[in-house]
Amino acid sequence: MNLILLDPSEVNGQRAHLTDTRRLTHLRDVHRAQPGDQLSVGVQGGNMGKAELVELSDSVATFHLGPLETPPPPPLPVHLVLALPRPRMLARTLEHVTALGVKQITLLHTQRVEKSYWQSPELRPEKVHQHLLLGLEQARDTQLPQVTLCKGFRPFLEDRLNGVLHERRGLVAHPGMPDACPRGIDEPCALFVGPEGGFIEWEVEQLLATGCEGMHLGPRILRVETAVTALLARLF
Amino acid sequence: MNLILLDPSEVNGQRAHLTDTRRLTHLRDVHRAQPGDQLSVGVQGGNMGKAELVELSDSVATFHLGPLETPPPPPLPVHLVLALPRPRMLARTLEHVTALGVKQITLLHTQRVEKSYWQSPELRPEKVHQHLLLGLEQARDTQLPQVTLCKGFRPFLEDRLNGVLHERRGLVAHPGMPDACPRGIDEPCALFVGPEGGFIEWEVEQLLATGCEGMHLGPRILRVETAVTALLARLF
Repeated sequence: MNLILLDPSEVNGQRAHLTDTRRLTHLRDVHRAQPGDQLSVGVQGGNMGKAELVELSDSVATFHLGPLETPPPPPLPVHLVLALPRPRMLARTLEHVTALGVKQITLLHTQRVEKSYWQSPELRPEKVHQHLLLGLEQARDTQLPQVTLCKGFRPFLEDRLNGVLHERRGLVAHPGMPDACPRGIDEPCALFVGPEGGFIEWEVEQLLATGCEGMHLGPRILRVETAVTALLARLF
Repeated sequence: MNLILLDPSEVNGQRAHLTDTRRLTHLRDVHRAQPGDQLSVGVQGGNMGKAELVELSDSVATFHLGPLETPPPPPLPVHLVLALPRPRMLARTLEHVTALGVKQITLLHTQRVEKSYWQSPELRPEKVHQHLLLGLEQARDTQLPQVTLCKGFRPFLEDRLNGVLHERRGLVAHPGMPDACPRGIDEPCALFVGPEGGFIEWEVEQLLATGCEGMHLGPRILRVETAVTALLARLF
């Protein structure tokens, strides 16, 4: 928790009050915070700055906010379209990509996504929200990503793909493509990443037919969370 | 397990026998392997190819090896010098960097590494070995990384650093350095990554004084496992 990320409902003028166990425990056990300490805070969707801890008990932490004048770090200009990973991988991947600055995430069904993953508790909005918060707290960011679930590949193709690709360069990460992942691009893009086992050829063909470019990340087979981090780091 | 990685002691001519529960369970429950199946295998330190599963029971899997003529993917030309992360982070980081192709890893004590981490069971040779194997199996590689533990920063500086930097470009990842992490370098390097909370300034000064270059990965604070993957993906 490199940033204490406040929900606007927790802020009242120059005062902020936290009451959730997770952050109270973290303040006490990890920060070993004491009244009088200056800590980094930010307001969801807003700016960041310092706040003085006024009170810390088992049930509440009260802060006196200094001026919040530091804007969050710039976002990555990418819409990540990710085949739904297995639940534990999803949790970590959401944290990684949020920390890296991704602001638009679509979780997509593809042929090789196990249907049962769509029933996972990790997909409940409050669980997803929690992972996004952890990523923001890690990276010192205040801008929540938007996560969209898309449970059919064909409906995605027909109804959503054109919108996702509007004024964006489409890039499909897929082993065996002739070109390597480009480096240091400076333009909005949509990045498509398949599941464990990859997209099926038909899915790749459909994406390429809409003008997406295929690319690979080398001969090694990486876990989804490793691959996504590596792709984002190389692209931007 | 994208590759069944055989220890040379498990190979006898064209036959190979596995008896450990982890791989037997994986073959049965994840691969759902049946006698007659062709699976990807490799021998530690050697080549890769296909093998036919001859027998699979609760206690043994027997393979008939085809010609093993595919070399493992090329390694990354990097010696990763990593401040010892907290144990669970260490486990995942070892898997990530092994999958990415790192072959030399030094785990280093620095001021902000908690001393208790050096007592973690995760540092036992057999545990470290296990994580390296998982990384190799993931990425389809056969070359085990070499992991060195270095429990003092000053002894490292005095006795080891010159060796690590011999004919290598030294790069220190540290927030606030003026230069960004270089992209797509094609030369041997030593990459220094600090702990949560970073190197202290004195440590950075010592590394820079030996000719290392400082560099940063942007304004976001990343977890060690995310940062290391991002650095390697951007550098190579």
